[in-house]
Amino acid sequence: MGDSTNSGERDFVGEASGIVEQAKELQDAASSLISRTTREEDSLRQKAKSLDSSIHQLRSSVRKSKLDSNQAEKLEDELFKASYVLSEGDAAAFLPSKSHGGFLRMFLGPINVRANRKDVQLKVKEEYNSFRDRTAYLFLLFPSLLLVLRSYIWDGCLPALPVQLYQAWLLYLYTGLALRENILRANGSDIRPWWIKHHYCAMAMALISLTWEIEREPSCAQKQKGVQLFLKWAIMQGVAMLLQNRYQRQRLYTRIALGKARRMDVVWGETAGVDGQLLLLFPVLFILQGFEAYVGVLLLKTAFIGVVSEWQVVTCGVLLIIMAVGNFANTVQTLVTKSRVKAKMKRGKSKQDLKSEGAKSL
Amino acid sequence: MGDSTNSGERDFVGEASGIVEQAKELQDAASSLISRTTREEDSLRQKAKSLDSSIHQLRSSVRKSKLDSNQAEKLEDELFKASYVLSEGDAAAFLPSKSHGGFLRMFLGPINVRANRKDVQLKVKEEYNSFRDRTAYLFLLFPSLLLVLRSYIWDGCLPALPVQLYQAWLLYLYTGLALRENILRANGSDIRPWWIKHHYCAMAMALISLTWEIEREPSCAQKQKGVQLFLKWAIMQGVAMLLQNRYQRQRLYTRIALGKARRMDVVWGETAGVDGQLLLLFPVLFILQGFEAYVGVLLLKTAFIGVVSEWQVVTCGVLLIIMAVGNFANTVQTLVTKSRVKAKMKRGKSKQDLKSEGAKSL
Repeated sequence: MGDSTNSGERDFVGEASGIVEQAKELQDAASSLISRTTREEDSLRQKAKSLDSSIHQLRSSVRKSKLDSNQAEKLEDELFKASYVLSEGDAAAFLPSKSHGGFLRMFLGPINVRANRKDVQLKVKEEYNSFRDRTAYLFLLFPSLLLVLRSYIWDGCLPALPVQLYQAWLLYLYTGLALRENILRANGSDIRPWWIKHHYCAMAMALISLTWEIEREPSCAQKQKGVQLFLKWAIMQGVAMLLQNRYQRQRLYTRIALGKARRMDVVWGETAGVDGQLLLLFPVLFILQGFEAYVGVLLLKTAFIGVVSEWQVVTCGVLLIIMAVGNFANTVQTLVTKSRVKAKMKRGKSKQDLKSEGAKSL
Repeated sequence: MGDSTNSGERDFVGEASGIVEQAKELQDAASSLISRTTREEDSLRQKAKSLDSSIHQLRSSVRKSKLDSNQAEKLEDELFKASYVLSEGDAAAFLPSKSHGGFLRMFLGPINVRANRKDVQLKVKEEYNSFRDRTAYLFLLFPSLLLVLRSYIWDGCLPALPVQLYQAWLLYLYTGLALRENILRANGSDIRPWWIKHHYCAMAMALISLTWEIEREPSCAQKQKGVQLFLKWAIMQGVAMLLQNRYQRQRLYTRIALGKARRMDVVWGETAGVDGQLLLLFPVLFILQGFEAYVGVLLLKTAFIGVVSEWQVVTCGVLLIIMAVGNFANTVQTLVTKSRVKAKMKRGKSKQDLKSEGAKSL
């Protein structure tokens, strides 16, 4: 950018050719960096893959062998350490990723949603948590507002537009959650597949509920029974989500501190809590699931008695029952795993030291 | 992985500690690669940014200066070459990216959807094209099927479920297109912002149409007039999309061959075609836009006469008119740009040589 030549006039031609030269140099540097990085990444990817399979092979050989349990446990601990280093450190970026899954491909096409750098991955995770926090408050606010307005302003009859706006928001919300959870999975999170499927069901229900006629007078109070129950269930869902979010975050931080959880773990909803607080959380979850199933059965009943006989009512009823059963099964499974882990922890305290050692080695 | 020690027994302990060692080495290699790459990428990013701004500065200085037009054009050509090298080669990956925009953040959170490697970017582009191809056929098939079944099986009255399935598909389709186009934009595509906004409008319309009651007997033929018109418009839209897709692909390949287009360009829909074929395409597009506006006006009319007075009818009418006007304005703008470029090409044939030179230098 030399403002040069004799009479104060700029040497435009010189500047321009200098810029062209710089552009070419930059192009060369960029292309060499990209090809070099690609080559090195491929090599690391291969090494990580073969190491990962060695760990699995050795683990199964040890299990099949006739070593005494003490020695076997020592070996398992060693292998746990190796797989922890591999899956929790920077090398994790080069492990073969879980397939992106059809859902992401359906909406986004074949783009890569995996972050190489751990700090970027954590940012994604953090944003997911805060998205869920914001969501929980709205989950509480919207249906409460609708029910309050219904009693005090709308004379017991919900008008169509606000309910449909709420349903459209639900559709957006569940689509966003399902997309984000699939992205987390691609980034190595251990989120249980059921919670993603649960959101697919919820998406379907939100979509169907949009096509559901909101009955007006006469006898709307009778015909809107289903919608009202649904709104009440949504409020409870909001309360449960708030409890869960708080407990899980606390628990996740505790587990990270103990070196027990991978930082990308999502312990969605109905699965966790700091031990003492579980006494509050699990009953709430079970009541919520019971209420969910009850709303489902009630919807089916109104359809079969013939008060409202649209297909939407039947389908939503079935979906609610499926979600309730699935949630219940997954919550119970989590409880079982939890108590098993506890029993194991009591047997061998040594594991704790190992894990913190594994964490330190990063 | 030595199957060793005296009696054919495997040395599990040795193998395990070897694996731990390998895991640590891999971890170190990965972390050094990631930090090195990050550093080098940052430096390239800085260089690319400053070069880009030098180009812009010099260009505006040249335009303000009192150079004779011949010399100025030479300089502009030189600067065009530099910016072409910068934006079309591997260095493009390090240019400051267009902001991801609120739409992507709303659905996906803050993930990076930008591919560094040109071949990956092109794969994304290719997939977008084939998504549009598949879409165009379905756009033709679904509404035709609905109209045929209506005449021959459903006695002139569309049942709600198939129409709502079609509307749900439209909602998915437009969401998918809007997400993909935002991703393309983040990857450097020059897609006109209007086409993305057009898809936001279309998303809104699909969502609203889902809440739209499909009237049944009596007098459904009268009340379903809007839906029928909409389906006919959708068929025409399908035909136009097929024509466009074919012409654009052809044109894009021609332009790439001439070194004129960036390979990430999306010349969506109503904007382009190989010159001779434009004689067919543009009239079809204008007729389509006219029909779109006509359907919009008709919807508004039914609302104001009072046959159907739901808010959905008014909103969809307004949206259709907005989309028609926007499409028309953008198509005309493209035609104007086109003829200007042609006029310029006639003035200075030399440009062609420069561009192929620019392309060669990659």
